[in-house]
Amino acid sequence: MLFTLTTDFGAGSGHPAQVKAVLLSAIPDARIVDVSHEVPRHDVLAGALLLEACLPWFPAQAVHVAVVDPGVGTARRALCLSGPGGTTFVAPDNGLLTPFLGEGARVFAIEPGRAVPAPRSATFHGRDLFAPAAAFVAKGGDPGALGPPVADAVRLAWPAANCHGAEIVGETLTADSFGNLVTSIREGDLGGAPVVEVEAAGRRVRWVATYGEAAPGELLALVGSGGRVEVSVREGSAAAVLGRVRGLSVRVILGRARGAC
Amino acid sequence: MLFTLTTDFGAGSGHPAQVKAVLLSAIPDARIVDVSHEVPRHDVLAGALLLEACLPWFPAQAVHVAVVDPGVGTARRALCLSGPGGTTFVAPDNGLLTPFLGEGARVFAIEPGRAVPAPRSATFHGRDLFAPAAAFVAKGGDPGALGPPVADAVRLAWPAANCHGAEIVGETLTADSFGNLVTSIREGDLGGAPVVEVEAAGRRVRWVATYGEAAPGELLALVGSGGRVEVSVREGSAAAVLGRVRGLSVRVILGRARGAC
Amino acid sequence: MLFTLTTDFGAGSGHPAQVKAVLLSAIPDARIVDVSHEVPRHDVLAGALLLEACLPWFPAQAVHVAVVDPGVGTARRALCLSGPGGTTFVAPDNGLLTPFLGEGARVFAIEPGRAVPAPRSATFHGRDLFAPAAAFVAKGGDPGALGPPVADAVRLAWPAANCHGAEIVGETLTADSFGNLVTSIREGDLGGAPVVEVEAAGRRVRWVATYGEAAPGELLALVGSGGRVEVSVREGSAAAVLGRVRGLSVRVILGRARGAC
Repeated sequence: MLFTLTTDFGAGSGHPAQVKAVLLSAIPDARIVDVSHEVPRHDVLAGALLLEACLPWFPAQAVHVAVVDPGVGTARRALCLSGPGGTTFVAPDNGLLTPFLGEGARVFAIEPGRAVPAPRSATFHGRDLFAPAAAFVAKGGDPGALGPPVADAVRLAWPAANCHGAEIVGETLTADSFGNLVTSIREGDLGGAPVVEVEAAGRRVRWVATYGEAAPGELLALVGSGGRVEVSVREGSAAAVLGRVRGLSVRVILGRARGAC
Repeated sequence: MLFTLTTDFGAGSGHPAQVKAVLLSAIPDARIVDVSHEVPRHDVLAGALLLEACLPWFPAQAVHVAVVDPGVGTARRALCLSGPGGTTFVAPDNGLLTPFLGEGARVFAIEPGRAVPAPRSATFHGRDLFAPAAAFVAKGGDPGALGPPVADAVRLAWPAANCHGAEIVGETLTADSFGNLVTSIREGDLGGAPVVEVEAAGRRVRWVATYGEAAPGELLALVGSGGRVEVSVREGSAAAVLGRVRGLSVRVILGRARGAC
Repeated sequence: MLFTLTTDFGAGSGHPAQVKAVLLSAIPDARIVDVSHEVPRHDVLAGALLLEACLPWFPAQAVHVAVVDPGVGTARRALCLSGPGGTTFVAPDNGLLTPFLGEGARVFAIEPGRAVPAPRSATFHGRDLFAPAAAFVAKGGDPGALGPPVADAVRLAWPAANCHGAEIVGETLTADSFGNLVTSIREGDLGGAPVVEVEAAGRRVRWVATYGEAAPGELLALVGSGGRVEVSVREGSAAAVLGRVRGLSVRVILGRARGAC
């Protein structure tokens, strides 16, 4: 059984190891892949975007444990999402699973005392609640046995791009570890049309297919490997150059008009 | 066979990979979990506290390799500890294994030239001595074949809490990666009594069950997930706010007197 | 099947996870060891030296994926190197595989559209080109089916040490995560002769067998665990003390003359 872990714990903190210990105690031949333990602390949107970029590459039968959980120990719900194709996700109900709340998703609350025991700690539900729930489902347990169905899972106010004619307007959402700025404009929003012009934070940006087309230090934009338009600086940090990570306006002009996106 | 690694090598240094290469060369189906490679460099106490918090969560049959080893290449002994329940630990004899030196532990020196060959390097015993010893035991080798029994393994001068009446006095021991300060006061020291008041470094601290009960930036104390009282700042670093990591006095007043701890 | 990954992606970036996802999708029981994801960004020489130090410790049948790739998406070739003993390496053709380009190595270009499909992205060939090529070979595919043989793979201008009489002159090449400076002088260059004197950047340096022989803060040199002479500062960073990482002159005087090295 394949598990992935995505957290803001810090890889060296010992917390990911304790989550793995719980999984391996339940399922000795578990395979566990670290997606990241360096999500910016408590940054649920950054975590959700990272999950969106990474999880689709994994085999469908994987069980994904995601814990960016500023509300740990409070009344926030814990969720188990069963996606189409058999993928399972466990995470706090704070919007982290927004990318996977689409059609075909069945969502259940994880209520301690049903299929999994009450957490031993009030501060480490990754180890004490989410890992046991993940192991329960991985062993064939019914997600619906964890708790009641949830119809109103928290969704992030996920900024979408706006398209009018040949213009698409979006904004920067988060930065990766190199300072590349991930935007709200998705590859599909371009509709296959050529890009004529890009502006970010009011500055002209060169549109390229790959970093090597820009000069060192130059502001550039491209479709990143996660399927979103990204603003970058070759051999530099766009976040540092533009002075901000979130909420910078990005404007893309296409070579031909397209409909709404 | 399940191994864990805990070191101060740095995850990206290539050193953990070489340790894993030696383990996998000996035991191709080894499972290896990184507890941490970011123990503060040469900080044996921090390493010991991390081991104390993490290792009990692993299956009993695991083999734990711990290398925080400022004395590598000097005359310090190398140890193999065989714990009750079949758990094995290999580590330098510098106090790193203090939490596991209790009843039922059998301790042997690892003397090169017996069951494992002389280390190829004088600076990297993780790869050249501890990994081979761990593999030897994991393959069913007798820990006693590694070297003579050791009755005087180094123990850290582990500060214990002092309890008098309803007051418990301890001190901060180390910080985790978020700046939470781990103290010498254990959950068991509280004896199940309610906590009425907490001071750290002479400052009043709010006692909570979970971070969410404090205001952002507020000093708080709670029983951490590792079973020790911790002093924290919500969405901040207690180490930064209090200006020090080790040796800050912490005072807990309980709602009722208890005996000595 | 055992894979290793060595990149400059950053462990927490999500990129290593996507590479692993592709490998695990192709080979569900793949074992994947991270050598490092913290190679200094775009530093091909540092990556090559890390590979040189680490990869020989792995079982011969391993498949090594190495991606430090400033030219991703440009016309630089992608390589699959089949070494003596059955080891496979995939990497961009930029010198990263220099240590393995010796006798017995067969090198092939990885040309998309042959055994592996065209990369989905122009910026992430680790996931889209190198991982599929690695999986192809790991499943028994012929490296020669990936593309035509390559006789002129890029080799780094790898500075060698110069030996005259009892003197060896080399230079610093890179630093590890502790600031230890790895030099162009290899253990074999010493020819087993005793070391009488060492200078680095014009400063006298103490020659030791292990760190513990030097005083805290003292400049020292020794044969590092990777088989090269290293310049270090005990409990400090030689890179910081000497103010530079690459190109510092290092001079070793032996106790007896030896031939050319």
